[in-house]
Amino acid sequence: MNRAGLRALLDQVREGALAPEAAEALLLGELSRPAFEDLGFARIDHHRALRQGFPEVVLGQGKSPDQIAAIAERIVALGDSLLVTRTTREAYEQVRRRVPDAAFSEQAGVITFRQGDQPRGRGTILVAAAGTSDLPVAEEAAITADIMGNDVDRLYDVGVAGLHRLLSAGDRLAAARVLIVVAGMEGALPSVVGGLVQAPVIAVPTSVGYGASFQGLTALLAMLNSCATGVAVVNIDNGFGAAAIASAINHLE
Amino acid sequence: MNRAGLRALLDQVREGALAPEAAEALLLGELSRPAFEDLGFARIDHHRALRQGFPEVVLGQGKSPDQIAAIAERIVALGDSLLVTRTTREAYEQVRRRVPDAAFSEQAGVITFRQGDQPRGRGTILVAAAGTSDLPVAEEAAITADIMGNDVDRLYDVGVAGLHRLLSAGDRLAAARVLIVVAGMEGALPSVVGGLVQAPVIAVPTSVGYGASFQGLTALLAMLNSCATGVAVVNIDNGFGAAAIASAINHLE
Amino acid sequence: MNRAGLRALLDQVREGALAPEAAEALLLGELSRPAFEDLGFARIDHHRALRQGFPEVVLGQGKSPDQIAAIAERIVALGDSLLVTRTTREAYEQVRRRVPDAAFSEQAGVITFRQGDQPRGRGTILVAAAGTSDLPVAEEAAITADIMGNDVDRLYDVGVAGLHRLLSAGDRLAAARVLIVVAGMEGALPSVVGGLVQAPVIAVPTSVGYGASFQGLTALLAMLNSCATGVAVVNIDNGFGAAAIASAINHLE
Amino acid sequence: MNRAGLRALLDQVREGALAPEAAEALLLGELSRPAFEDLGFARIDHHRALRQGFPEVVLGQGKSPDQIAAIAERIVALGDSLLVTRTTREAYEQVRRRVPDAAFSEQAGVITFRQGDQPRGRGTILVAAAGTSDLPVAEEAAITADIMGNDVDRLYDVGVAGLHRLLSAGDRLAAARVLIVVAGMEGALPSVVGGLVQAPVIAVPTSVGYGASFQGLTALLAMLNSCATGVAVVNIDNGFGAAAIASAINHLE
Amino acid sequence: MNRAGLRALLDQVREGALAPEAAEALLLGELSRPAFEDLGFARIDHHRALRQGFPEVVLGQGKSPDQIAAIAERIVALGDSLLVTRTTREAYEQVRRRVPDAAFSEQAGVITFRQGDQPRGRGTILVAAAGTSDLPVAEEAAITADIMGNDVDRLYDVGVAGLHRLLSAGDRLAAARVLIVVAGMEGALPSVVGGLVQAPVIAVPTSVGYGASFQGLTALLAMLNSCATGVAVVNIDNGFGAAAIASAINHLE
Amino acid sequence: MNRAGLRALLDQVREGALAPEAAEALLLGELSRPAFEDLGFARIDHHRALRQGFPEVVLGQGKSPDQIAAIAERIVALGDSLLVTRTTREAYEQVRRRVPDAAFSEQAGVITFRQGDQPRGRGTILVAAAGTSDLPVAEEAAITADIMGNDVDRLYDVGVAGLHRLLSAGDRLAAARVLIVVAGMEGALPSVVGGLVQAPVIAVPTSVGYGASFQGLTALLAMLNSCATGVAVVNIDNGFGAAAIASAINHLE
Amino acid sequence: MNRAGLRALLDQVREGALAPEAAEALLLGELSRPAFEDLGFARIDHHRALRQGFPEVVLGQGKSPDQIAAIAERIVALGDSLLVTRTTREAYEQVRRRVPDAAFSEQAGVITFRQGDQPRGRGTILVAAAGTSDLPVAEEAAITADIMGNDVDRLYDVGVAGLHRLLSAGDRLAAARVLIVVAGMEGALPSVVGGLVQAPVIAVPTSVGYGASFQGLTALLAMLNSCATGVAVVNIDNGFGAAAIASAINHLE
Amino acid sequence: MNRAGLRALLDQVREGALAPEAAEALLLGELSRPAFEDLGFARIDHHRALRQGFPEVVLGQGKSPDQIAAIAERIVALGDSLLVTRTTREAYEQVRRRVPDAAFSEQAGVITFRQGDQPRGRGTILVAAAGTSDLPVAEEAAITADIMGNDVDRLYDVGVAGLHRLLSAGDRLAAARVLIVVAGMEGALPSVVGGLVQAPVIAVPTSVGYGASFQGLTALLAMLNSCATGVAVVNIDNGFGAAAIASAINHLE
Repeated sequence: MNRAGLRALLDQVREGALAPEAAEALLLGELSRPAFEDLGFARIDHHRALRQGFPEVVLGQGKSPDQIAAIAERIVALGDSLLVTRTTREAYEQVRRRVPDAAFSEQAGVITFRQGDQPRGRGTILVAAAGTSDLPVAEEAAITADIMGNDVDRLYDVGVAGLHRLLSAGDRLAAARVLIVVAGMEGALPSVVGGLVQAPVIAVPTSVGYGASFQGLTALLAMLNSCATGVAVVNIDNGFGAAAIASAINHLE
Repeated sequence: MNRAGLRALLDQVREGALAPEAAEALLLGELSRPAFEDLGFARIDHHRALRQGFPEVVLGQGKSPDQIAAIAERIVALGDSLLVTRTTREAYEQVRRRVPDAAFSEQAGVITFRQGDQPRGRGTILVAAAGTSDLPVAEEAAITADIMGNDVDRLYDVGVAGLHRLLSAGDRLAAARVLIVVAGMEGALPSVVGGLVQAPVIAVPTSVGYGASFQGLTALLAMLNSCATGVAVVNIDNGFGAAAIASAINHLE
Repeated sequence: MNRAGLRALLDQVREGALAPEAAEALLLGELSRPAFEDLGFARIDHHRALRQGFPEVVLGQGKSPDQIAAIAERIVALGDSLLVTRTTREAYEQVRRRVPDAAFSEQAGVITFRQGDQPRGRGTILVAAAGTSDLPVAEEAAITADIMGNDVDRLYDVGVAGLHRLLSAGDRLAAARVLIVVAGMEGALPSVVGGLVQAPVIAVPTSVGYGASFQGLTALLAMLNSCATGVAVVNIDNGFGAAAIASAINHLE
Repeated sequence: MNRAGLRALLDQVREGALAPEAAEALLLGELSRPAFEDLGFARIDHHRALRQGFPEVVLGQGKSPDQIAAIAERIVALGDSLLVTRTTREAYEQVRRRVPDAAFSEQAGVITFRQGDQPRGRGTILVAAAGTSDLPVAEEAAITADIMGNDVDRLYDVGVAGLHRLLSAGDRLAAARVLIVVAGMEGALPSVVGGLVQAPVIAVPTSVGYGASFQGLTALLAMLNSCATGVAVVNIDNGFGAAAIASAINHLE
Repeated sequence: MNRAGLRALLDQVREGALAPEAAEALLLGELSRPAFEDLGFARIDHHRALRQGFPEVVLGQGKSPDQIAAIAERIVALGDSLLVTRTTREAYEQVRRRVPDAAFSEQAGVITFRQGDQPRGRGTILVAAAGTSDLPVAEEAAITADIMGNDVDRLYDVGVAGLHRLLSAGDRLAAARVLIVVAGMEGALPSVVGGLVQAPVIAVPTSVGYGASFQGLTALLAMLNSCATGVAVVNIDNGFGAAAIASAINHLE
Repeated sequence: MNRAGLRALLDQVREGALAPEAAEALLLGELSRPAFEDLGFARIDHHRALRQGFPEVVLGQGKSPDQIAAIAERIVALGDSLLVTRTTREAYEQVRRRVPDAAFSEQAGVITFRQGDQPRGRGTILVAAAGTSDLPVAEEAAITADIMGNDVDRLYDVGVAGLHRLLSAGDRLAAARVLIVVAGMEGALPSVVGGLVQAPVIAVPTSVGYGASFQGLTALLAMLNSCATGVAVVNIDNGFGAAAIASAINHLE
Repeated sequence: MNRAGLRALLDQVREGALAPEAAEALLLGELSRPAFEDLGFARIDHHRALRQGFPEVVLGQGKSPDQIAAIAERIVALGDSLLVTRTTREAYEQVRRRVPDAAFSEQAGVITFRQGDQPRGRGTILVAAAGTSDLPVAEEAAITADIMGNDVDRLYDVGVAGLHRLLSAGDRLAAARVLIVVAGMEGALPSVVGGLVQAPVIAVPTSVGYGASFQGLTALLAMLNSCATGVAVVNIDNGFGAAAIASAINHLE
Repeated sequence: MNRAGLRALLDQVREGALAPEAAEALLLGELSRPAFEDLGFARIDHHRALRQGFPEVVLGQGKSPDQIAAIAERIVALGDSLLVTRTTREAYEQVRRRVPDAAFSEQAGVITFRQGDQPRGRGTILVAAAGTSDLPVAEEAAITADIMGNDVDRLYDVGVAGLHRLLSAGDRLAAARVLIVVAGMEGALPSVVGGLVQAPVIAVPTSVGYGASFQGLTALLAMLNSCATGVAVVNIDNGFGAAAIASAINHLE
């Protein structure tokens, strides 16, 4: 049960659609679910959806396929949706044995499985990417935003060196409630986009580049120094993190 | 005229409250205002409010008091509110000669003057600061959020070394629609706050600290690596930038 | 013979439990042991236990399996316990040919073999880790502390984004005489733990993370800037070093 | 009341030296003291001594003399000892108006005022400094350790370029229960000291040096990479932090 | 005599406009001028104009006003134009005593004095600056380009956050033979300009900004990673250097 | 059609060599070509040659062989020359299936295919390299300059430690219209070359070196600080970028 | 012919041991040898021995085995000794086909072949190394010093954490004319050695370590900040460079 | 008594020029001098000249004028020469009250006073500096080398951008027994000089420059990566350190 579900239940009680006794039973069942579950190597946070609107997400990096599969199985068993990021096909094969309908995006390195009713965000999240090499990160963001209940609009290869490609999509920029802007190299795209829109912009630097790009450090620094207002930044290659805050914004009523 | 004003005008036309002829005259007047005004050393962006919801803000740093005063005079003359950041009392004295009712916050280094109807944000922006030394940045954020039309709740000196100070304010954290979290040194506060709330968190690293704080770099890096979801980061000491995106979020309908 | 053994011997003499002649013979034997032994590529420090309380520990990194096995054989031949850190299964196979009962932790990359009476520390060393990916470093610390004669309490996956996981273990935190706190990413855990306990905290940054974690640099810097008192820091991924000083502290009378 | 005081009270009750009613009254009085006191710009943590063994210490840097004096007055009013670090004579003048007997060390930048019974540490803390320029940091450590209830031994100007100066003090090194080793430039002293003693060593890098010392970064990095065991590190110039953990260690029973 | 003067002389001989004897006398006089002149603290390179097209330029930083004035006097005495960069009004006062008609730009920190016939570049050098705070660097570039014989077009305050300010000057961008683009903060302007023009772009990062701008490092890195082709970069705040290579390009036949 | 082609067409009309009707038809055909073509993962900029003098160049790094081949096919189909940089033999094999006559330089990692009339630059571009290990970058520059229509002179292994190797080529240095100077390690070559010539110098740092070369950072910084005038710098290992701006300069009329 | 050979020849002429005619013939033969030889990808500096006392040394890194073998063959063919550093067994196999008696050190990555009379240095070069992992660099130095004509004394595994290992070799330290001191991690050994001897010390940082050793950067910085006098530093892992300058010093008369 | 004096005394005994009884008295007097003298804030190393050939040198930076004067007085009182580096006129005024004949170089920030017989080095130390701004560091080196008993040749303003200035001094370069090469900005001069001479080169980076010179870091890195052999490096601006090792080399017999 996430927070939206809790509020819906309380609304039903107020409106008489649900008897207090039935609501009590439901709530007791939920509360009997432990706050976290200790697997020895991990403590799964079972109250995450209630506290933050989406179940605990598994960061695949640094975990073995076996560990990922064991955690995934527990999350799914409790009726929650599953999202594993920064992971590999090898881990996916392990997960699929326990969650047969899980899906995998090779490009984004993301495993997903949906269940339950994820509340919908109010508007569209636009994911813009500067170049083809930025797509893995952009897709991590897009898939995350999607599974978290948002409409997603993808606008790719609109780097600032050919500005007409971006300017020709002015209507899509204006229509978004939140924008995720992904770029490597000099990381200029969020500044340009940020100057064109009123909606909040979440900038994602990528490690795309070479030499003095320093694995994304240059793009990160550039975005932090954006002269445009309404721009905030997440870690290098952190498409997931950008989508998480974008989704939180998009779910604001 | 900002975007909210434009929509209000169009709504009035639709509802018959405003004659199309009158609306046309108003719009023509607005459009006759040039997109920007060239002062030689600066080009004031007069369409900023229309495009982004708030008039152009003056970054005081690197500008002479004379330049600041000249720009301020033009902005006020056009009926817009004035916000000058990272500035000094010396510049304020110059501005006051031309805008007698302008106010100054010594602590935040901010000059303000309000006029016109700034549309109100929907909820409260909470500004949390880890320590007393972080207050200049926190106040820059709070004053900015205030003049941009938001209710502001200040929660200061709640660093993680004495967690009970933060936890005792759980209701205020939960009540905020957006949170700005300001911290120097190890920059841990946004991670802890981010784990407690569902609302988006804008993290502001400050240059408070010494030695290996590297003028805020450590806090910046820590915030970018936050293990909490729903956190995005702005530049070191950039209270203004945090408030700008927080306000954009808080004005989303 | 380590320092505790030396003192025990002298105590026995004082109490008449050991004849001075017998003690003299024992001490002469010990002193005839050379201060170090030159293997050509290494000089094994045979007085280390006497000087510092534990025999020389072998840093496996940068040494060939043959070199490690040769050093290990000499240490064991002299009756000392063996600890090899940052090593591989390949080296372990070589060591096992000469020290058949040596043990290996794949996760921690550590070879161990116990013999002799290691003096016991006075209290418990708690090893806390923020996430599952930090376990290799945490285990290096735990195994080291264990072989150095300490009781060890492991508390894993208690990162600050889900604070209730940590707070629910308040009694274990309070019971520890020394704490080793292991974290990657933003490295905030030692600050939070340091604010909750009176005992000394040894913070270990790990290279867990990506992008702007810079292979643990961010966690290192954050820990050095901890606003909590009673926290000192060791090198990135240096579980061994943390356990060594924690053990020195825990053996203080 | 600090933790030692609490335990003493309970011991008295057990031994019949204090009537339960009297103890109850004392405890109720203590508990009626608020956990923290909000001065608007600061929240003084009044349970710090109980939780961590010493009252809240004031970091002077970044606070105005007025703020420092206000905080100092409140701490002293509650019967606690006062320690302000990284501060100036100007702040001291302000403090002295409200706490007339407060003392000031120009060299260390530290204000102190003692009251109450600070529990004594069990052994001696030796503070070693590599050069004359390191004395401000060494003195910050020594004064802090002293006010926290420890015997302090100062051993200054014993840099590794003239090793006989250090080696001639071997007995003082061996006699210390904890060592604080302060050095700038190449920061080699903790490695040499760490190889000579069994007791824990807290290393403090200083910003002494020029060019590629990078304001203490070099010394910091060198200390983190110490090849000696039993060494942990605090922030650059953080004499206070070193003394705080050294005192925590020295107070272990 | 610079290279253009040498070629003109030879052309005159070929065309019979100058007798070989006269030319010989002129050339002998020139060759009798020493390759450099040793002032003790400086060796003035008197063949610089012949070798590189413009006399030696004096970098004022790190030189005393007396040294600058002494060098300036010698350069002017030999009939060359004078350019002193990164200097102060104090130095200017000293220079003016020996070169009464020398001029000074307070904003750019540049002393100039013109004499002789500087060959003209073929086209216009456009100097674009992102913000008002970048003007000192932009003016250093513009004044340098001017004295080196180029037509200069100044286009200031055209940062990417208000793109219409730049796009409205498309004709001036297209008309330039070389462009110097000056920006601080995120340094995005050269990428956008570079995508709009065919002419070579010399990018100049400035130290304008704060926090993670790191005194211009961010802008420098961003410009080096520009995704636009036809962009090369000079040192932070090096308006002079940009103008020097731009002038060399503009003088190509 | 590139810009030179456009001007040639207009010249023909003015001179009567082409009927306005014929010219109109040609121009309409060209204008009917879309500004960019969307392949889903990439938007090929078809107006690049018209806007910048050479068709869009494909950065191979971060693109799959399939993506590269698909983009290459479209570029060639439109009659443009093909240049793919930072690519592999594997990608080349894929490209060759669709563009059978494409060529590959193993050393430079560059795929090329020429068609159409590339306008010729006016002079020679000299590519100088300090050492044998710098040749991959130097060749990337030389091949790029060649396909962009320039005469190229290669001068390799002329590092400053054996200055006579460079000085013996003084005539070739003097004859170049633009110079590309490639060096790793201490990156001193551009300063020395820059002091010898009047023509503009584009400096290319390479990642050649070890230890404190930091993958080319040292050479990059050195070149940015060149005391010679007339030097600008591109990214580490960016032979392509150097050639692109050198070609733009060499094509100036 | 190196410089010593040249002087010997002139001495023989003066003393009548060599007829001027014979000397003339020898010198003409030498002068007919070209200053450098162009292999296309490399220009071998044939005057290096005459100018600097030892033939050109081949840096293997970044050169293909074929290139190395081709250069090696030319150097040997001219009668010079061969030294190839930072190379591999694969390159050695290629070299051996053309120089059958060449030797290879797997540990140091060095190929050598001796011929001709290398002048002897006057004293001994001591190569001290802190740990076993530093031996590859120490051996590169020792082999280089040896082939350049110096007596070499190896003193390995004498790190500062066990100072008695170093102090017990005081006589060998005192006997050396030049010292090369090799260390990774905190790089403290040169400071300690530098304080014990009068002879010049060349410090070599190595990339041995992990975490905050940053691949040798920490050791490099520490050595540059050595508080001992008489210490200079070469690049990380640059055993060759240390030996080259040590040999130059040791050959001074 | 320094080492040369000790040897002279023993030679006299062997040759009968000094009676053993007289020598014994002299040596006993010398040995009765304590190894170091403790001033509280400093321990003056009185055996430094005996151990390292020159008395302890005072690093002025970080010491108060009073401390410097007190140390200076003790050194002079014992008959040793005095050298204080990185100091100020204010400290000089204090020293002069106690050592009236002490001299001061404003440019170099160095106080000197000579007494006793400093042994002479065998050859000349050449100090070369790239630019006028490097003179403070070059003079620190020259004055140090001079007082340590060396002939010094100063060659200033010979930067690589005007190579003829350096090449015209080829004979002076060749005549030096050791070379100190001082340069800021790109730090290329040592590489060029190192390729021209056989003698050892000590490179000194200076903090001269701006922007990406990073206070001398660029010059430091460049010098460490020198492609010339026979070059070693000291800390940024460390003219003293360069002279100390150069003097040690020049005093080798």
